Amino acid sequence: MNMGTGPEAVSVIGLGAMGSALAAALLDRGHPTTVWNRTAHKARPLVERGARAAATPGDAIAASPLVIACVLDHAALHAAVDPYAGTMAGTALVDLTSGSPGQARETAAWAAGHGIDHLDGAIMTTPPGVGRPDMMFLYSGPRAVFDAHRPALAALGDPRYLSADPATASLYDSALLGLMWSALTGWLHGTALVGADAVAATEFTPVAVDWLTAVAGFMTTYAPQIDAGRYPGDDATVDVQIAAIGHLIHAAEERGIDNALPGVLKSAMERARDAGHGGDSHASVIEVLKGAK
Amino acid sequence: MNMGTGPEAVSVIGLGAMGSALAAALLDRGHPTTVWNRTAHKARPLVERGARAAATPGDAIAASPLVIACVLDHAALHAAVDPYAGTMAGTALVDLTSGSPGQARETAAWAAGHGIDHLDGAIMTTPPGVGRPDMMFLYSGPRAVFDAHRPALAALGDPRYLSADPATASLYDSALLGLMWSALTGWLHGTALVGADAVAATEFTPVAVDWLTAVAGFMTTYAPQIDAGRYPGDDATVDVQIAAIGHLIHAAEERGIDNALPGVLKSAMERARDAGHGGDSHASVIEVLKGAK
Ligand SMILES: NC(=O)c1ccc[n+]([C@@H]2O[C@H](COP(=O)([O-])OP(=O)(O)OC[C@H]3O[C@@H](n4cnc5c(N)ncnc54)[C@H](OP(=O)(O)O)[C@@H]3O)[C@@H](O)[C@H]2O)c1
Ligand SMILES: NC(=O)c1ccc[n+]([C@@H]2O[C@H](COP(=O)([O-])OP(=O)(O)OC[C@H]3O[C@@H](n4cnc5c(N)ncnc54)[C@H](OP(=O)(O)O)[C@@H]3O)[C@@H](O)[C@H]2O)c1
Repeated sequence: MNMGTGPEAVSVIGLGAMGSALAAALLDRGHPTTVWNRTAHKARPLVERGARAAATPGDAIAASPLVIACVLDHAALHAAVDPYAGTMAGTALVDLTSGSPGQARETAAWAAGHGIDHLDGAIMTTPPGVGRPDMMFLYSGPRAVFDAHRPALAALGDPRYLSADPATASLYDSALLGLMWSALTGWLHGTALVGADAVAATEFTPVAVDWLTAVAGFMTTYAPQIDAGRYPGDDATVDVQIAAIGHLIHAAEERGIDNALPGVLKSAMERARDAGHGGDSHASVIEVLKGAK
Repeated sequence: MNMGTGPEAVSVIGLGAMGSALAAALLDRGHPTTVWNRTAHKARPLVERGARAAATPGDAIAASPLVIACVLDHAALHAAVDPYAGTMAGTALVDLTSGSPGQARETAAWAAGHGIDHLDGAIMTTPPGVGRPDMMFLYSGPRAVFDAHRPALAALGDPRYLSADPATASLYDSALLGLMWSALTGWLHGTALVGADAVAATEFTPVAVDWLTAVAGFMTTYAPQIDAGRYPGDDATVDVQIAAIGHLIHAAEERGIDNALPGVLKSAMERARDAGHGGDSHASVIEVLKGAK
């Protein structure tokens, strides 16, 4: 914990592309930083920037009250830290390794069994974005652990505390990546469509980026509809959207563009209409998505 | 054309939800506004706000140098204006009726045949957004017509001139709506996912909205890759995304969420990988979308 005597000491376990970026951001903000990686030579550039290289994960754990782990996966995390669990009571372990909600709960239970203060985290950027104050890092687990180490976490990006349930960060991670793949693939489909008529991607994309701001406005309008379970179609109805997506599919077909994505979007809208939401807003489509069970 | 003697006179043909909003925005900005609708009583609220009601489309056309049409569809447009085509030489006709790129080209040819100055337009908002300076209206057709009537078009929203090809506004419209449906449905899927673990839509959505800013950044990074036809995977590769979307599909399946959308996204990524783009960025997925012909 930071005792007010300067930036908190932090250890970073895992120096792949992401772990190295995390350690570099901590060094940039003046945190005394100890690093460990299975393949030792990856520590070298960080040592040149002022990090201390630990010989074992145990040495790294002993060096700092806050340990940030970012290795390939859940199995790699346990391979690295399990042998030292007995020495970790009172240590804060922030796990930025990607994994499933179930794995986050498992690690939280394991940590609780050893008196370790555990937070699960999700990094919503790529290595070049680490250290930028607008890049989101999501955390879940005990609020007190987050608050105690917030200044060090702020060296990495914009730290967002979500919930006491350790699984929440990982669940948000998947949900947000799903939004990303959807938006990116929708944008690629649109770029292919206008590209068939000789519009460059760099010409279309600034318009698409501005348009995303309006789309974000629709999301903000629709979120309370979802919580209320009522979807007034004042602005645009599912029926109208079904007609309009037909134009897209037709124009794309004429240009030889793959229509699997708009096809699946249209069929979700049609199922919403068939369930009685034809006059409701597009938010009502959530009813058929969550209805599979 | 505006002769510098105050706001240009404008006629609006079609007073559905959208046409009524357009006429109201023009009145708000002081444009002398003449309106016509097939069902006459819809003009009443606008007349109360200062509009003049025309008895026929021909009267509306004769009243103003700029005619904005916004009716149900292409057939409705022709039903309204065709009988008066012989009187329209020198009139500017801005068609904000939704339609296909082919329909826009057809109307442009018809207009050229009668000496009508035609622009095709697409409205990227809903009626409550009309008049807001940040809401995009897209136009294509002769640049001179756009420039001559820009002040009146700016009363409706943010006017963006795209290209001399009349089909471009309609093509962008479809492409941008496709991006919207993709992003909204991806957001609904994520909202259903976190909702299964009792996170409210209004709790998740502000994080999703902030995340869209990062996603827009990826689009801006990827656009020049598409124009160059080379997709360096420095930030995150298709192989890594395929692994990560597996986590999403698994977490959604466990919660009974419909996985048709992530399924189609994953299969596009897998086809990109199979085409040799496993080490490339997600932008390379465009190669399999445009490859259907
Ligand atoms: N890169 C991104 O854009 C990004 C974004 C968000 C989240 N993440 C997540 O961050 C984590 C790390 O990603 P990365 O990009 O840094 O991957 P990476 O460059 O492939 O690095 C993987 C790291 O895991 C270590 N490792 C693998 N197996 C191990 C084991 N059995 N024992 C100990 N260490 C082991 C590797 O050590 P060696 O050097 O010895 O192989 C290396 O340090 C992943 O969970 C990833 O999903 C990455
Ligand atoms: N609403 C939106 O959010 C939105 C957004 C972007 C674009 N648009 C586009 O704007 C256009 C109008 O939409 P809207 O929301 O205003 O629809 P709407 O409320 O259903 O109004 C349809 C209009 O078309 C007229 N019309 C229909 N058939 C006609 C015919 N044969 N002859 C003459 N007039 C006819 C109707 O006249 P009556 O009153 O006599 O029936 C009415 O004025 C559509 O192309 C739509 O795609 C709408």
